[in-house]
Amino acid sequence: MPNLDLAINNARYVLSVNSSGEVYENCSIGISGNTIIEISKTPLNAKKVYDASERLISPGLVNTHTHLAMTLFRGLAEGVNLQGFLEKVWAAEGAIMDAPTAELGTKLGALEALLGGTTTALDMYLFPEGTHKGAVAAGLRHVSGPIFFDFPGLDGLEWEARIAFAKQWPAILEKIGGAQVPTYLMPHATYTCSPEHLSEIASLAEEIGANIHIHISENQQENKDVADRYGKTPTKILAETGILKRHNIFGHGVHLIDSDLVDMKGRAAVAHCPGSNLKLASGIADIKKYRENGITVGLGTDGCSSSNDLDMWPVMRFAGYLLSQNHGPENSKAEEVFRMATIEGAKAIGLANLIGSIEVGKRADLIAIDLAAPHLVPIHNLYALLVYAAGRSDVSDVWVDGEQVIENRTSTKLDFAELRKDVNQKVSQLNG
Amino acid sequence: MPNLDLAINNARYVLSVNSSGEVYENCSIGISGNTIIEISKTPLNAKKVYDASERLISPGLVNTHTHLAMTLFRGLAEGVNLQGFLEKVWAAEGAIMDAPTAELGTKLGALEALLGGTTTALDMYLFPEGTHKGAVAAGLRHVSGPIFFDFPGLDGLEWEARIAFAKQWPAILEKIGGAQVPTYLMPHATYTCSPEHLSEIASLAEEIGANIHIHISENQQENKDVADRYGKTPTKILAETGILKRHNIFGHGVHLIDSDLVDMKGRAAVAHCPGSNLKLASGIADIKKYRENGITVGLGTDGCSSSNDLDMWPVMRFAGYLLSQNHGPENSKAEEVFRMATIEGAKAIGLANLIGSIEVGKRADLIAIDLAAPHLVPIHNLYALLVYAAGRSDVSDVWVDGEQVIENRTSTKLDFAELRKDVNQKVSQLNG
Repeated sequence: MPNLDLAINNARYVLSVNSSGEVYENCSIGISGNTIIEISKTPLNAKKVYDASERLISPGLVNTHTHLAMTLFRGLAEGVNLQGFLEKVWAAEGAIMDAPTAELGTKLGALEALLGGTTTALDMYLFPEGTHKGAVAAGLRHVSGPIFFDFPGLDGLEWEARIAFAKQWPAILEKIGGAQVPTYLMPHATYTCSPEHLSEIASLAEEIGANIHIHISENQQENKDVADRYGKTPTKILAETGILKRHNIFGHGVHLIDSDLVDMKGRAAVAHCPGSNLKLASGIADIKKYRENGITVGLGTDGCSSSNDLDMWPVMRFAGYLLSQNHGPENSKAEEVFRMATIEGAKAIGLANLIGSIEVGKRADLIAIDLAAPHLVPIHNLYALLVYAAGRSDVSDVWVDGEQVIENRTSTKLDFAELRKDVNQKVSQLNG
Repeated sequence: MPNLDLAINNARYVLSVNSSGEVYENCSIGISGNTIIEISKTPLNAKKVYDASERLISPGLVNTHTHLAMTLFRGLAEGVNLQGFLEKVWAAEGAIMDAPTAELGTKLGALEALLGGTTTALDMYLFPEGTHKGAVAAGLRHVSGPIFFDFPGLDGLEWEARIAFAKQWPAILEKIGGAQVPTYLMPHATYTCSPEHLSEIASLAEEIGANIHIHISENQQENKDVADRYGKTPTKILAETGILKRHNIFGHGVHLIDSDLVDMKGRAAVAHCPGSNLKLASGIADIKKYRENGITVGLGTDGCSSSNDLDMWPVMRFAGYLLSQNHGPENSKAEEVFRMATIEGAKAIGLANLIGSIEVGKRADLIAIDLAAPHLVPIHNLYALLVYAAGRSDVSDVWVDGEQVIENRTSTKLDFAELRKDVNQKVSQLNG
């Protein structure tokens, strides 16, 4: 009998999301430290026992593209496309954003994400030291990294200062702590970073062993602007500047052309954000084609100023619905969609060795779905239930890296009432 | 001072959804019996007082097209289009459906709907006496009516028996009681009811003063089948058989052509069901065009066997997203979407004189949104918050016809645990 820290006992269902998609009924999970060390047909003894008899246990959801600090701008830019959105939001950021504000916004976003069952988020934003502190305080597995633009942003950093900061990033990550994540560098986009700067980032990424996260081909206008300036696609620029030598994940990737898919294969995954893409009228990514071309596809919410919340459940619905409408219902499988929100998202981020499925040896990033809700009765098809009927409010308990961060729909780490007060005080400066 | 039965006091926001879209802050609502009789800037005295200081009060949502009893078949027909869906579901219905089972399934569906803030549903199904009993027991404002097919359905009724039952319907409605609703007759579709039978229904509707609810132009295949048989559109058949002399609401109406819109104007509304339509790959209704042609558009979930739950909140998101993607963000206004889910839905059903907005003299069909959730912080745009960030779990309390039917997210009328047991027992006959 191992010395277990936590046993999740008698789960009505456990979705392993392993390579053969096994679903275990009446199953128990043993956790020691941050690691799953036993999956058992019988209840386990442990220092702490969680009764999961009315619960479905699933790997935590993986949000592969967001901007958590922008939760502060929820609903601020309505009725506009990507370019109009950037204009509005950049003005708001100019008015109130700094490192403590980014930390505050990220705390709120991380809390929202965790309450809805997201245990890992790939988060691109300014002031990553602040955002990482905020997300780690909430208990999220927070994948972040230095952001790059040609011009000095709100953070006031000139290019050389950005590069210098990025070189310190691995040490900063280690100092802040939190659940293990890969090192990332995050050039904003090919329309905001020159090819010369991208080459520099590629070299730095090689040097520090970093993955890359970047916005690519979010809408046709972006592709056109980049083509007008450089005569090629955003992806081709990444290929030519050496960025694609590292593991990449593209935010959105709505308008990738066939040659892009060739350049990407084995090098770049896509963070599919159907809610944000529809709302900003950016288009609909043909993820069926991407996947058939060997591209890993994860799901993402984008930031709250474009798609207004951090809820991965409607994102799953949209992804499934759009596959059905565009390719026929036979090409939209709820299980595949759920895998995109878990293990495929983990692969997209480069974390599939640690998270995304419930398997012995993996980290205990787990969520409990409370099945005692009218909208979850009856159960004819478990994956269809999750993708098309379940929602964030069904997530009762959440563990990240073995630690319970949400207990009975409440954070064990942050005081929401206090956070809300701080947020409202901060954003009141926008309206004044 | 009126003798109030209920005061909803100090609401942080009240969305009137009246013709000028007024939003009241720190507002109180006085209710006597089933009727709103006062909207006040100061708190009111009443037999019962509800503290709404952390709440937004809105009119209850109106689901303009559903099949509540089919909640029993949630997730039973995955990966199929409309025709494949009908095949699967009709088989399941054949195995277990009868009047008590329809009542049971409708109870479950009505409970789910109410918990999510839907106070009125237009519900088409067999055994309407059973379904109406079930929905009224849950406390829903339930708009139902006799269904018609050429062939004897599961209910075993031959055509003449259907007509005879329909003549008794107004008396049955009165006997069962419940919140006031219009009388409806519900021919299933033009591919299941002959023109002769539709003419007969039209005469009967005139005789008993009934509105009509019917599936129309749900997908291209339906239009093609009907054109092959009759050489015209489903809507044209309704025009020629006299059905359009009565107030109609069309379920889906995805593929209406220009001449249909002319025939419909002032006579037929559309129940837009974007979730179901995408999932069954039926297409996307051009509701912008419909509305520009003077057609009232409400929103609906359809039944749980096609779109898997009865949640109007993602339906609002889909409606808004699709308007944005297809017509540009400037043509997708959250306030307009929210109106479609409330007052426009009430108009579509023919109930706008009683429900759909918060105005003195209207029935008290109200929902309270609990604003103390991270995903509802901060508030920059109230309608965007509701349409793109709020969800069913934010609905804490629900009143229908002045009666509180949901209190603190729990039914005051039904025992969910018992209902769930009964449902699981019944559907186990499908799997056995």
